[in-house]
This record gives sequence, structure tokens and C-alpha cells, in this order.
Amino acid sequence: MSYFFLDGYESMETYNPGEQPHDRPYIKLNANESSYPPSPAILEALTSVQINSLAYYEDPYNIKLREAIGEIYGFPKEQIFVGNGADEVIAFIMMSFFREGFPIASNDITYDFYRTYAQTFHLKYRKIPVKADFSTDVDALVECGCDVIIANPNNPTGKAISCADVERIVKKNEKRLVIVDEAYVDFGGETALSLVDKYPNIIVVRTYSKSRNMAGARIGFCVANQDIIDDMRNVKFCVSPFNLNTLSQVIGIAAIKDTKYYDECIKEVIETRSYFESELLRMGFEIVPTVTNFCFFKASGIIPAELLTERLKEHGILVRYFGFEPRTKDYVRVTIGRRAEMEIVVRNMKAIIEEYQAEKVSNARRAAS
Amino acid sequence: MSYFFLDGYESMETYNPGEQPHDRPYIKLNANESSYPPSPAILEALTSVQINSLAYYEDPYNIKLREAIGEIYGFPKEQIFVGNGADEVIAFIMMSFFREGFPIASNDITYDFYRTYAQTFHLKYRKIPVKADFSTDVDALVECGCDVIIANPNNPTGKAISCADVERIVKKNEKRLVIVDEAYVDFGGETALSLVDKYPNIIVVRTYSKSRNMAGARIGFCVANQDIIDDMRNVKFCVSPFNLNTLSQVIGIAAIKDTKYYDECIKEVIETRSYFESELLRMGFEIVPTVTNFCFFKASGIIPAELLTERLKEHGILVRYFGFEPRTKDYVRVTIGRRAEMEIVVRNMKAIIEEYQAEKVSNARRAAS
Repeated sequence: MSYFFLDGYESMETYNPGEQPHDRPYIKLNANESSYPPSPAILEALTSVQINSLAYYEDPYNIKLREAIGEIYGFPKEQIFVGNGADEVIAFIMMSFFREGFPIASNDITYDFYRTYAQTFHLKYRKIPVKADFSTDVDALVECGCDVIIANPNNPTGKAISCADVERIVKKNEKRLVIVDEAYVDFGGETALSLVDKYPNIIVVRTYSKSRNMAGARIGFCVANQDIIDDMRNVKFCVSPFNLNTLSQVIGIAAIKDTKYYDECIKEVIETRSYFESELLRMGFEIVPTVTNFCFFKASGIIPAELLTERLKEHGILVRYFGFEPRTKDYVRVTIGRRAEMEIVVRNMKAIIEEYQAEKVSNARRAAS
Repeated sequence: MSYFFLDGYESMETYNPGEQPHDRPYIKLNANESSYPPSPAILEALTSVQINSLAYYEDPYNIKLREAIGEIYGFPKEQIFVGNGADEVIAFIMMSFFREGFPIASNDITYDFYRTYAQTFHLKYRKIPVKADFSTDVDALVECGCDVIIANPNNPTGKAISCADVERIVKKNEKRLVIVDEAYVDFGGETALSLVDKYPNIIVVRTYSKSRNMAGARIGFCVANQDIIDDMRNVKFCVSPFNLNTLSQVIGIAAIKDTKYYDECIKEVIETRSYFESELLRMGFEIVPTVTNFCFFKASGIIPAELLTERLKEHGILVRYFGFEPRTKDYVRVTIGRRAEMEIVVRNMKAIIEEYQAEKVSNARRAAS
């Protein structure tokens, strides 16, 4: 730590992204990325003309990209803000509207980035405990009386609340903002976009990282009423005016238009999810029903969750373990890849469990002898 | 403005980037961009493999890009931080090290982004007046006793201070950080990179936007001692872990290695600058000697600066006018493009001046009659 680092940052706990080891090839199912490539349309969009135009600054208003997104979702560009990933969109929301010392409520088990961001800017982060089945305590959020940020569907649990429940939170807290991060909504959640024109205090955040197969492109956006978007643009123009580079804007436009391609990818993910869930059940695991591109299931009982995670890694498969929290330490989160990948996962899980049970038996024998 | 916008932001003056009108084709010399395309190596680097890899998150540690940059400048990757444009790098510096209420000193005439950023985060921004010839008041910065951020060479003036002068500021303010933004240094300034291993309190910021012909790619970086870089990475991991997308990292690596190409572009810009300066002198303008890729010259006396800017735009040429400040309102800033572009600029300036003088004569005659 340098002499100059701001007081209060010493104990900062940074966000921990899913690991990206390169010691060997892995089936990567630890960061809820898509195993499908982006739309082929983005390859066509990247012409040499556009690449040479990199010499000039891109449009800082992102007009064409916002128009393209708005057209798909039925909003004028004035209600769309785009950022360098949904993380940056959320950062601009927090920067624009959240005050130091004033609390933001969120599920206590959720995407950890909200907490790290809040902590960095000295915002009070109020954790509302999820229920025993990991579902969101909607009543507690309705009554919390402060700004709210929720991932819906939630990560890593895969649980979602209905649009009617989101509306209850939004309606009860007219003077407080409600941020709904819908990163995973396309895989079976219910969007709250219909509330945007009904309430001035809701912001719906979306990303290209999941259902658009473009985590490495860093494109996110949000939809809200125009005043909110204007405020965010003003803050952006003070902090990072040119936040989305030329190539991101070009491929962002090409990708968002290719609805057909993405609908097919999503359909396949949902089918593969059913296959994987039924295999998990067949192996005896307790699963948390999911409407996302990942499964969160209780491993312990059959095999300790951490051990399963480690052994899968030894077998070339990366999944995610959340051992820091007592209520999730028995669970494993596995992203839904392609069918062929999930078949390999199932095969390896069966082998790992068999091996583990044989070890248990032999250990027990050794102890008895 | 929404009900939710933070108090104190109402009067926020946002950064004003150079305009990008699209009503007709323009020779764009208003944002100090390069008129040369990026290295052809970046086109080769953008293979379909890399584009398909967009489905996965990129390396949030930017290891390969930091290694490539470090190799060119003679630093280990541990001393390099990369960001989504130098603006974001500066934003992370301010976020990591600058305290609310604690003053940052800068030249009063300089890149306006420092002020807008400081204002957004309630930092005290102390403007140190430049001298009558627009040169930096080094003594005042040495004695200021607070954090310092300078563009060196400075923008829009084109004036630079020596590395020895930077060292005086750094040495006298051991407990304060000195940020040196060297966006334009490759066109003839003296870099302060040699001070980085000598002092723990200097950060040198660089960009791909100017001498690397890639303003639209949004790649910037800074070089400092490892503690500083570690602190910035920790803040980044709380605020925007995946700040540089896959394609930016790929083209950033390809571009930084092609030194030969960029050296040739820089050489041509410097030659064209000599041509343009001598033409300005021939037209009777008073020029501020420059070591950058732009010329800042006094138009008024021959033709009002604002009028010259407007008429050039009518002739399809965009240049920059800074009328909001009494000391710059008689000046115009023109980016140095390709030789052919600057010949068109010269031709049009001569025609505009001739026309203006004819108007003056005819107005005088009309007034006299």
C-alpha cells in the first residue's frame, strides 16, 4: 500500500471475479459466461473502415447504439444509458444518486460487486437476509425505506421475484430509487421494463455479457425515465466522457439486432439446463430451482462442496464455490454451457462422487482395523 | 434533473468534448486526434478467434497488455496500470489518492477534464495561473504544498516544462502526489518517466489517443512505483474490474509493438507542424511555440478568433476555440493533420482572411459614406 492511499481503503475487500487459470484448457463454467460465440453479425460489422476510424474519438453520446437498443426494447434513446459493462452502468448510478452515509439495501446473498462498490464510496450497505430457501424477502425490501439494488434473477442463487413484487418495492418507496439488475432475465425471469414508464424511481440494468454471449465486450445499459438518464449522462461527461469505444459501439449495434440468433442460443441453454438439473437430481443433489444460465445446488451430503469444486478443477472443469458464507458453503454454482460440455461435467461428477465414496469406505475400514 | 440527483450536482459544468457534427464531411482538427490510421498490425490482430472469445470475460489484470507496454518503456508490468482511456486512468488516480476537500493544483489553462472530475467528487481544485506567455509557473507549483496534476506538454497551449522542472515539483512535495499527463509528449516534449524509479510520488500518464492514432480505442495507462499501481488495481477491482475489453487488449498489444510505424507518423506530424507554423507566421499570426500535435496561435489582430473558427467550419474544417477564458479568447487551436489537409487549411485561411479584410474595407467605406 502506498503512503498516498486514501484512509479507509486499507481494509477494502475487492471484488473477486471467477478465476481464469491458463495452466491447461478448461471447460469454464465459473463466471456465468456463455459457451456460445457472439452473433456472426459482429464479425461482419468489424470492417477495416471502422478499424481505421479508431484514429478519431467515438461518439460520446453513443447515439446509434442507444437507438438500436431502444428499438429492440421499445424505448426512445433518451431513456437508454450505455456503459463499459453493466458494472460501469451500476457505478454511474451509484455515483449519480447515492449519498455517502445513506443506506442502500440489497439481498445479503447476491452479486458481490454492489457491496464492493458501496464500500469504496463509503455508502452504507444494508444487507437484507434472503429467506431459508434463498428467495428474496420482498416484504423486507418494501418496508426498508431506503434505496434498493437487487439482481433479479439473483446470483448466485438463481431465484427470481415477479414483476408484481418489484412493483410493490418501487411503489412503496417513491422517494427512493430501485435498481433492478436483470443480467440473467432472458433465461426465464420476468422483466420489470414495463414499470419504467409507470414510475420515475426504477432503473432496469441489462448486460451483453450473458444472453448476448459477449462478456469480453463490456457492454451494459440501463433503461429509466429521461431525467434519470440525463443526470447519468452529465456525471459521465465529468468522469469518463468517452466510456464506450468505437468497436464496442459497432459490435453492440450488430449484436442487439440479431435477436433470432440469441433466441436460439437461449433456447438451447434452457434445454441444456433441464438436462443438467435432471442429472443433478438423479445423482441425489438438492437443487435450487433456477431461471438463469446457471445451477446452484447443494453438494454437501453427497460430497463436500469445496471438494467437488477442487476435484472438478483437477478434471479440467471450473465451477464456483462460495465458501465464505455459512449458508452457501455447502453449495456449488455451475454455469450452463453447451450440451456436450454438460455431459462431460455429469460424467466427471459421477466419477468424482464414486471415487469419493470409495475413499470414504476405505478410510472407514482403515479406522476400524 | 431527476428528484434523485445528488445535491451539489445541479450546477455541475460537464466536460465539453470537441464537436463531432455529421451534416457534411469535415477535416477534423478540433480534438487533437491523429489523421493517420492506427498501425496495420491491429487489423491482423483482430482474428475471428479473438472475436469469438468475446463470449468470455477478458483478463481483468490485463497482464499481456501491461507486459507489452512495460517492455516498450522499460518497466515491469507491476509498474503499469491500464485503463479505458487516459481519462479513466486519471479517474482511478483521483479516486484512489485524492481526498474530498483537500486541494489539487493545476495550471489554470489546461485540459478541462481535471476540473470537471475534481468538481464531481468534491475535490478542491486550485488553479495556478499560467504566465503571460502561457508557460507553466513552475515555482508556484513547487511551492503549492498540495497534490499536483499537470498536462506536460500542456493543452491547449502546447507549452512544455523540462523533466528537471518536473523533478523540482516532485522533490519538494514528497508527501504529495504529482501526476504528469504526457498525452502529447511524443511530439517533442521531455518525458518524466526517468523520475518514476527515483521518487515514490510521481505518476506518469500516457494515452494511445494521440501519437498511437487510436483515440477511438480508449486505451490509456500510467507508470508509477508498484505500491501506487497496487492501490489503483484494488480500487479498480471494487469499481470496474473488467475495465478494458478483450478487443482493446488485443489491439493495444499489437499497436504498442509497432514502434517503427508510429515513429514515422510522428516524424511526418512534426514536419507538417513546421510547414503549418511557417505558413501561420507568413500570414502574420503570432504563434505559441509548440511541441505537440497542435498549434495554438493568436488570430485576433488579423481576424477575430471566433469568426475564424466559424468560417473555417463553413469551409468544412473543424478547429477549436476557447472563448470562455479572457486570455484564450483571441486564440485558435488547430490540430496538425496530414500535409494535404494542412495545405487545404492554409488555402482556406488565406481566402477567409482576404474576404474578411474586404468586408472591413467595404464596411468602413459604407460607414464613411
